[in-house]
Formats: sequence, structure tokens, C-alpha cells
Amino acid sequence: MVDIQQANETAVERMMSARPILKSVAAARDVIPGMHDKLLLHAGPPITWERASGPMRGAIIGGLIFEGLAGDEAEAESLVTSGEIELAPCHEHDAVGPMAGVTTPSMLVYVVENVTHGNVAYSNLNEGYGKVLRYGAYSQEVLDKLRWMNEVMGPAINDALATGEDGLDLRTLLSESLHMGDEGHNRNKAGSIIFTTKLAPGITATAKDRAVAAEIIKFLGDNALSVLNPVMAACKAMADAGHGIEGSTIMTIMARNGTDLGIRVSGLGDRWFTGPVGQPDGLYFAGFTADDASGDIGDSTITETAGIGAFAMAAAPAIVTFVSGTPQDALNATLEMYEITAAEHKYFTIPVLDFRGTPTGVDIRKVVELGITPRINTGIAHREAGIGQVGAGLVRPPLSVFEEALIAYAETYL
Amino acid sequence: MVDIQQANETAVERMMSARPILKSVAAARDVIPGMHDKLLLHAGPPITWERASGPMRGAIIGGLIFEGLAGDEAEAESLVTSGEIELAPCHEHDAVGPMAGVTTPSMLVYVVENVTHGNVAYSNLNEGYGKVLRYGAYSQEVLDKLRWMNEVMGPAINDALATGEDGLDLRTLLSESLHMGDEGHNRNKAGSIIFTTKLAPGITATAKDRAVAAEIIKFLGDNALSVLNPVMAACKAMADAGHGIEGSTIMTIMARNGTDLGIRVSGLGDRWFTGPVGQPDGLYFAGFTADDASGDIGDSTITETAGIGAFAMAAAPAIVTFVSGTPQDALNATLEMYEITAAEHKYFTIPVLDFRGTPTGVDIRKVVELGITPRINTGIAHREAGIGQVGAGLVRPPLSVFEEALIAYAETYL
Repeated sequence: MVDIQQANETAVERMMSARPILKSVAAARDVIPGMHDKLLLHAGPPITWERASGPMRGAIIGGLIFEGLAGDEAEAESLVTSGEIELAPCHEHDAVGPMAGVTTPSMLVYVVENVTHGNVAYSNLNEGYGKVLRYGAYSQEVLDKLRWMNEVMGPAINDALATGEDGLDLRTLLSESLHMGDEGHNRNKAGSIIFTTKLAPGITATAKDRAVAAEIIKFLGDNALSVLNPVMAACKAMADAGHGIEGSTIMTIMARNGTDLGIRVSGLGDRWFTGPVGQPDGLYFAGFTADDASGDIGDSTITETAGIGAFAMAAAPAIVTFVSGTPQDALNATLEMYEITAAEHKYFTIPVLDFRGTPTGVDIRKVVELGITPRINTGIAHREAGIGQVGAGLVRPPLSVFEEALIAYAETYL
Repeated sequence: MVDIQQANETAVERMMSARPILKSVAAARDVIPGMHDKLLLHAGPPITWERASGPMRGAIIGGLIFEGLAGDEAEAESLVTSGEIELAPCHEHDAVGPMAGVTTPSMLVYVVENVTHGNVAYSNLNEGYGKVLRYGAYSQEVLDKLRWMNEVMGPAINDALATGEDGLDLRTLLSESLHMGDEGHNRNKAGSIIFTTKLAPGITATAKDRAVAAEIIKFLGDNALSVLNPVMAACKAMADAGHGIEGSTIMTIMARNGTDLGIRVSGLGDRWFTGPVGQPDGLYFAGFTADDASGDIGDSTITETAGIGAFAMAAAPAIVTFVSGTPQDALNATLEMYEITAAEHKYFTIPVLDFRGTPTGVDIRKVVELGITPRINTGIAHREAGIGQVGAGLVRPPLSVFEEALIAYAETYL
């Protein structure tokens, strides 16, 4: 008879003691396990072209054009539908990507090592605002910015990291930013300027020339999501450390591809449990309404999986101006998540709750028993390819995926 | 008969609508009104050598050695006691300085213009941690760092500011940092990295060489008080905009020299009302106790005067690990200050209080009537010259200064 309590303690203890360090920036094909020249990674559980949402299709088209594999939309579509190009979830290759999460072989990715347990996770670079691939846009300006990031910014960040001794400690960065009004998912204002401030001296010292260095520092500093992608890789490295514990009912992945939401559970191996994504409820940018919204999309829910994001909303009362609600709602969000989690985080604390640790490690038993699903903070993509972000808000996964996972658990262990 | 209510509304409206912009960095002698080669400015109300505290004496000695006017302590003392060197409060020259606040003619200062009303305020550059002049230390390393700041860092910041269009908007910076866990006096972590991030591209683009640029950016980014001095000048520019309103009972200066605390009142001209400084109650660094503490010192209480600092503690729950108390105490501190202030700030808001404006504009009538004195967050200096900071904590001014001011008000207006 498996000791579930003990298994969950082990899983959550490993998640919390994981120490993710940003080590370098490298080409996906050179570092991501199993990456090859005809493989394109995407957010969420597995998806086919036929079932893919507008923003996911747009990002796949853009990724293939960026890679030089397709010249236009029709070519891109036929490459994917013919099977010449393979699609796979980022999560199946130790990686994560925000929104569509499309990561191609040539793209540079952050390399984040959990130095406690030795596992490594990867994420692409954040493009900032406006028309961006992650929201399904693929116009010339989108591709030009991706090239600049790949050829200029990414290598400079890599060189800057090499000037330090041991890389950049992302757990420490997150601990600090949670004391500075971030929740680490939709609000990364503090984290992004900590990130910029830490990298700036190294970028200045090593970049090709001073104008380039200034441009990169300005790009990182002006983008309040600069740190989101390395933070996501850090959360992936932490969550993965808790995966694969025999008998554990802790959720170690939650991710959406715009059509399906999928979770994985520590004690249930590589099986995905999936269901239809929800429609975020939130605030829309001028000119857009809920009718414009794509289904929930992105691997960024790895933050909630690791105990931050919507789970740490009490630390980020100012976020309500962006996602809707009141500061009291933000407090209540965190308090509710203690109901379905196994631990309070040792390193991520919330000053306003007397420095209580964030709710960490969703126990699928509690979700099903209480009917309380994990909360998610998210950006909202337009449902058509090529348009971009239309708002930000709150959403929950369907309860059915937790029920299905719990049935599978019973079949496996009981 | 003067309309006190109307006068106070005018004073506070002017304080809040002031928009302080950091314009440049320049030598005190070139920009501060009335500055001359034999004048040394200091924090708080007027003080003589005989009555000066240990850290104030240390900083005066260090300032005179830095300036090349004295070779050692004895020479410095005799220059001051003979009257050959004149001492005057920073505040009497549109300036402010943290702790001892000693500002000499050659020192570079931040130039902050209130573009709404046209007045200008000044503050010296922040030295960071360890042995520093502002805490009364004046060893070779202190003087070397001051020279580096004056010859390398200050000019680079000035050049960086010149690359922008209109300088750096400090009211916007403060609005943001209050949403990122700062209160703007003892906790300036967020503000300092916003400051660094905004200046870094300009420093990189203009500094002598890239190694120098990297060193300056690292110094600014590693010092969580980098922005304190420009913020103090910003608060001075705001508070001064509310000064001189006929019939107003709003406090426009509160400052300490280590011996006396002094206030000025909007409707009472240039008269100081002074009383003995308190002893801060707080947390001491390892190896120090309250017996080591100097009396309360510094112009940094201009922050509380302008509606931030201890008045905005509810925005900064994490500060309690530094100054003592609980997050609930921090909330209560802000709530109490609403009792003695005339307005809620239009631009400085506190998310956790549903974005209520910070308590702004201390009304000396309310202080006396309720017996509630303004709260102050502060660093604690060692009482002997040359040792430095020994802790941080909370303190209040003596009630007597407000009573004395109110009597003077009655004599003037009633």
C-alpha cells in the first residue's frame, strides 16, 4: 500500500528545494533533448493542425517562415498536415513557452539548471509587446524582431551570463519580486527590472558595441515581461523535480494549447489528462470584447503549478488593475489555493500574510474532493491568427481533467 | 479673518500637483542658491559645532577634508568654531541630504525641477553601504568613494540624463515604486532598480568606456538606496511648492540634525520650530544595541512631509523585517496618519487599501488636537563619528514643536 502523504511530501519538498539557475542562452537544436530540424515545439498538450486554435496556427506558420522551411501560410500548413514537420509539446522536451509557445530549432532558449537535483529546463526569449509570434502574429516586423533577438540580444545575454560566476539565481529573484508586488505570471514588473539590472553590467561590458548594449538594456528594461520566460523555465525545473514520485497525487504540469488544457501528475508518469480550455474572464483592451478571445493558451501555468502566479496574487494587489477584481479578491485567491495544495513554500513568501509561504503543490485529490480547481492568471489572445493580445484575466481548468486523473490514479495504485 | 481650510487645500493641492523631474547633476557651488566656497550645508535645523552630534561632527570633518580645506580633525574643528567656515541647513538653500546631509561646494548634486510651479530642489549623491560620510565616517576609503562618485559616476549620470528628452520623472517613479513594495524612505529597492534601469542605456551609450559604464550601473543597481537622494529632492520640490501659503497650517519641512528636530509651517515663513530629537526604536545590526544609537538625524523626513515614507508603510509590508513590527503595524501606521493629514494623495496610491491615496500634508492643528505626531521611518547612526549605520527603525518628533508652532500661528493670524 502506497503512502500517499509521504509521496506528496517528497514531491513538494523536491519542488521547493529545487534551485533554478539561469546558466546560458543557446540554440534549441543544440541543447533541448530530442530537438531536430523538422521538429517544432508548442504550448500545452499534443495538438494537430486540424484542431489548433487561430493563434496556435499563426505561431506555427510564423515559426516555419522564421526557420526558412516555409515561404507562406499554405506551404506551412501543408508541411504540418503532411507530417513532414513534426509537432510536439514543449513540455515533452523539458521546455515551456508562453501563449502559443512555438519554439523552432534555430531559436535561442534560456537554459535553466536546477542545481539541487541536476535537471534542466528551457524557454524561448520574450518578444515584448505589440505584434508577437506568441500571440500568433507573423508579419515581417514580427520576424525581424525575432531575428534581432536571436542574433543580437540572445548572444549578448549569454555573454553577460558568462561574466558572472554561477549564472543568475532565479529562485532568489522570485523571492524578491514577490516582495515587490509581482505574482510572477501576469505581473513581472519587479522581476523584469531586477533581471535587467543584474544583466546590464555584463551586457555593457561584453556587447559588440555600446549602442547595441544600450539598445538591448532598453529593450529588456522597457518590457515588463522580460523575465517571464526564464521564470517559466525556472518553474518547469522546480516542477519537474517533483515529478515521477511513486504514489504522489501532486500536479506537476498544467498547460494549454488554445484548444485543450492538459495536466500531468507526479505519480502517473507521462500520461496527459486533457479537457477543453476555458475562456478567460478579464479586462479587454480598447476595441475588443470577450467575443474576440481565443481559448486559454500557453505553458505559463507552470507558474501556478510551482506555487506562484494566481496562487501568489495576495503578493500583487496592484495586478487587479490589469486582470480585473479588487485587492480583496487577490487576497482571497491565494487563501483559496491553500485549500487544494500540499505545502506552503519555503522560499516564496507573502509579506501581507505575515510572510506565509505561497500555496504550493496542487493535490488532485483535494481538487476533486472540494470541487476547487486551480486559479490561473493569463493573457488573452485574439482568436484569429496574426492579431495578438486583446486583454488579460482569470480562468480555471475544467474539473473533469482532475477527475479523470484521479480515476487513473485509483486504477494504478489502489 | 483667514480661511484656514482654504489655505490648507491650496498648500496641499500645490504639493500634490508638483511634478518633480530630475534634470541634471551639477556641482553644488554652480547651482545651489547662496552656496559659496566657505559654506557647508548640513541636515536639519541650524546647529553649532558645540551642540553637534558625533555623526554630524564626523561628516563635517570629512566634508572639509574632501574639500581640501582641512587636513585633519583638529583643523576642521577650528575652521568651524572660528567661523571661518559657515554652517547652514540644506533646507535653507533649497536642498536636502540624508543622515548628516553634509554637502560641500565641490560635491555634485541632483537637480530636480518641479515643472508645474518652477521651483528647484537639490540633493547629494547616495554613497551606498558600509563606511559612508552621511553616517559620519571619513576614512580614506570614504573619501575615495566620494571622489569616484564626484569624478566618474555623477558626470556619467548627468550625461545619461542629457540623452533623454526631458529628464527623469520622479513622481511617476514613486507612483510605480509604491506599487512595488517601497515606501520611499527606508525601503527604496524597487525605486532604485527602476532608476538604474532607466539610466543604464544612457550611461552605456555615453560613459568614458564600457568598463566604467558597467561599474557605475553595478554600483547603482546593487545599492537599494540609489534613488533615495533624488527622491528626497523630489519631495523637497513638492513640499516647497506648498510652502508660503498665507494662513496655512500645513507642515512643509521636518528635519533632524542629530540634536534638534525642526519643522516649518506653510503659513509661518522661514521660522524653525525645534525640539530635542527622539531615539529611534528599531532593529539593530549584529553587535549593536540602542546604547550605540545617535539621536535621530537627517533631512530624509522630507519624504513623510510629502506623504510617503512612514505615511505609506501600508504599501511596503516587507519593510518590517528591516525596521521591526508586523505587516499589520505597517497598515496601522498609514491609517493613523490619515488622522493628522489634510488630503489623500492624487498620484501616490496604496493598492492594498483599494488604491487609496497616501496621507498627505500634516496639519499641525490636528497633531496638537489629537496628540498624534507624525511617524518617521529612519536609519540609525552610531553616536560616535566614523562608525556608521547600526540599525533602522521608527521614531516620532516631540509634540512640543507642533505646540510651539501652533502658538506662533495664533499670534500671527488670530
